Amino acid sequence: MLTGGPSAAGGVDRGPFVAPDVAVVGAGPVGLAIAWRCAARGLRVVVHDPAPGSGASHVAAGMLAPVAEAYFGERELTALLTESAGRWPGFAAELAEATGADLGYRTEGTLVVGLTSDDLAEARRLWAYQQGLGLPVTPLRPAQLREREPGLAPRLRGGALAATDHQVDPRRLVPALRLAAERAGAVLVAEPVRRLREVRAGVTVVAAGCGAAVLTGLPVRPVKGQVLRLRAPGGGRPGFRHVIRGYADGEHVYLVPRDSGEVVVGATVEERSDLDVSAGAVLRLLRAAVDLLPELAEYDLVETVAGLRPGTPDNAPILGPLPGHPGVLVATGHHRHGIVLTPVTADLIADLVTGGGPDPLLAPFRPDRFATTGDAVPVAAGAATTPAHSTEDDSWN
Amino acid sequence: MLTGGPSAAGGVDRGPFVAPDVAVVGAGPVGLAIAWRCAARGLRVVVHDPAPGSGASHVAAGMLAPVAEAYFGERELTALLTESAGRWPGFAAELAEATGADLGYRTEGTLVVGLTSDDLAEARRLWAYQQGLGLPVTPLRPAQLREREPGLAPRLRGGALAATDHQVDPRRLVPALRLAAERAGAVLVAEPVRRLREVRAGVTVVAAGCGAAVLTGLPVRPVKGQVLRLRAPGGGRPGFRHVIRGYADGEHVYLVPRDSGEVVVGATVEERSDLDVSAGAVLRLLRAAVDLLPELAEYDLVETVAGLRPGTPDNAPILGPLPGHPGVLVATGHHRHGIVLTPVTADLIADLVTGGGPDPLLAPFRPDRFATTGDAVPVAAGAATTPAHSTEDDSWN
Repeated sequence: MLTGGPSAAGGVDRGPFVAPDVAVVGAGPVGLAIAWRCAARGLRVVVHDPAPGSGASHVAAGMLAPVAEAYFGERELTALLTESAGRWPGFAAELAEATGADLGYRTEGTLVVGLTSDDLAEARRLWAYQQGLGLPVTPLRPAQLREREPGLAPRLRGGALAATDHQVDPRRLVPALRLAAERAGAVLVAEPVRRLREVRAGVTVVAAGCGAAVLTGLPVRPVKGQVLRLRAPGGGRPGFRHVIRGYADGEHVYLVPRDSGEVVVGATVEERSDLDVSAGAVLRLLRAAVDLLPELAEYDLVETVAGLRPGTPDNAPILGPLPGHPGVLVATGHHRHGIVLTPVTADLIADLVTGGGPDPLLAPFRPDRFATTGDAVPVAAGAATTPAHSTEDDSWN
Repeated sequence: MLTGGPSAAGGVDRGPFVAPDVAVVGAGPVGLAIAWRCAARGLRVVVHDPAPGSGASHVAAGMLAPVAEAYFGERELTALLTESAGRWPGFAAELAEATGADLGYRTEGTLVVGLTSDDLAEARRLWAYQQGLGLPVTPLRPAQLREREPGLAPRLRGGALAATDHQVDPRRLVPALRLAAERAGAVLVAEPVRRLREVRAGVTVVAAGCGAAVLTGLPVRPVKGQVLRLRAPGGGRPGFRHVIRGYADGEHVYLVPRDSGEVVVGATVEERSDLDVSAGAVLRLLRAAVDLLPELAEYDLVETVAGLRPGTPDNAPILGPLPGHPGVLVATGHHRHGIVLTPVTADLIADLVTGGGPDPLLAPFRPDRFATTGDAVPVAAGAATTPAHSTEDDSWN
């Protein structure tokens, strides 16, 4: 056991007024998966969130893409993404077993495509880097792309297959995780946590996404993403099976097909904290999407939505003990990678809670890599000193 | 009195079971305005509609544009549009007087602009035609356009001012008309009319938009229009005051600013009867809008919606007695012109109801210009023989 000393027994009812072993702040996929893992190990777990699953995961596309998202200068993050993506098949199977839920987990793989020769040149630089890391990315000629997806625009200049980059539906994942956590004994409390000292528990895990900033003083900032949801006409499935990630006249876009007929089109990356949907963002996303896959023009536009990713100064998550706060662990800052990182985060944080030594994988992501005030920022001061945060985010869960 | 003989007195209570003098089927702007006019003349009026104002008017932009919409081959329609637009200032004043409502009636006029030289060439042909009819359309150079609206794209090739083409907000108009009609004594009945013979009244006026087809057998068909609503950022007013109608790379688009901050962007014209919003339509509208007025990219996209205009074979409304049905008048088929034609339709139909001779203006728009079955099409047969109609439209009001 890391700190704070939760008592051992999970099966013994110590009454409603006994502090739980673990309090998780935040019922997004990360918080719920941690709660599930901890409860399954016999700990008494409470999860605090007034609106489970209403944060970044509600907007997320659910790409599990350690290969396509292996960017320059992020080798340690790529290692964590790869590790977590490797855990996803087992995680999905276990979750489906525990709940009977269909998570929309699909393994057709991802096609990365370039519309113009400039787009293709940009993509090729990254593929060379990814291949240099030993990641499975296979360049394909236009004819090979269209063999796999006949709907792709004839003028595409080239692409690549990332066969191991899969997808899951976050809007199915979150209710499944909640059910699994509750079946394992975790209790959801639909009330917000405004300060850490309100929480009474052996260990507190802050998995509050953007809300972690005011609770912990850590440099987590909202990174706005706008996302569209289309629907194939006539109630059918989309006319393509792979996740498609495209470079289209300099615009980066992804297209994620679901069996339900839904296609997720995303996403902007904006240093803003509002949740407004802008005409310009919708225009850019639709233009890039239709340029890559012309049939999408005939699809219904059924949703436009914005969410806030929890970003950090180095774009990597913050995982581990909060300096100066014995008994507090942090699992936030997952930025664009919350869904893919859910399994490894849940496993490694549960290890810390139950007293396992920190996994070496966690070392690059410790909270103490950032200077903090040594004490959590009070809500009011936090709001005042982080003007980029919307007021909706100043409290969380 | 045309037919059916409503008794004279408006002020005498003849109890709830006496048939009204006038039954109006349809509580869109046309039906409500007719009801208001008739009730104000002392007639007992009932209006049937399960969802007042939920048809084409809910989607309409509210342009009052007899000049900009004076198209080749529609001289008689242009005359009617011009007559009705001329009645709008008095109609709006009277309605505001009767209800205290702000209708969003604005008189800044309309700028018609062409983005490319091809667009401008197309527009100029029409302006020459409109000027030949004596309509007030004044060509403007790009610099003159930007003097009036500095936000217009610098690359616009030219435009024209239609100073007398005004606008009103249909979503304010409909509740005001309803209030005025009710204050004048009209009674709204929130039940649908499935067959004309269900209606007991001295005169029945079918103002049911697309729903008139199954009630009357007249060739009214749905013409789908998709429309966006943007909102100026920060709660301000839009950065432009004129209605802007543009030709943008062959795409026709209009931009209607409201004092509330709303900007209506429309509209597709599609021979379809569904109400789905398609990705391609939103893309085309946004692209044209942003090409003409780049600042719109920063506006919020707050609504995407589709509506069905009641179209006719000659694109002109159907106004007057229904052949073979004594006591039944028709006021439908207003297509793209329902809002601008509301005053003249209400006045002239009320004249017919109260026994005035038909105004010569109505002559080109009589229902008997179309062959009908001589009897209303039963609902089932109507649905079967007009497959382009959605089932939602097969009954109306």
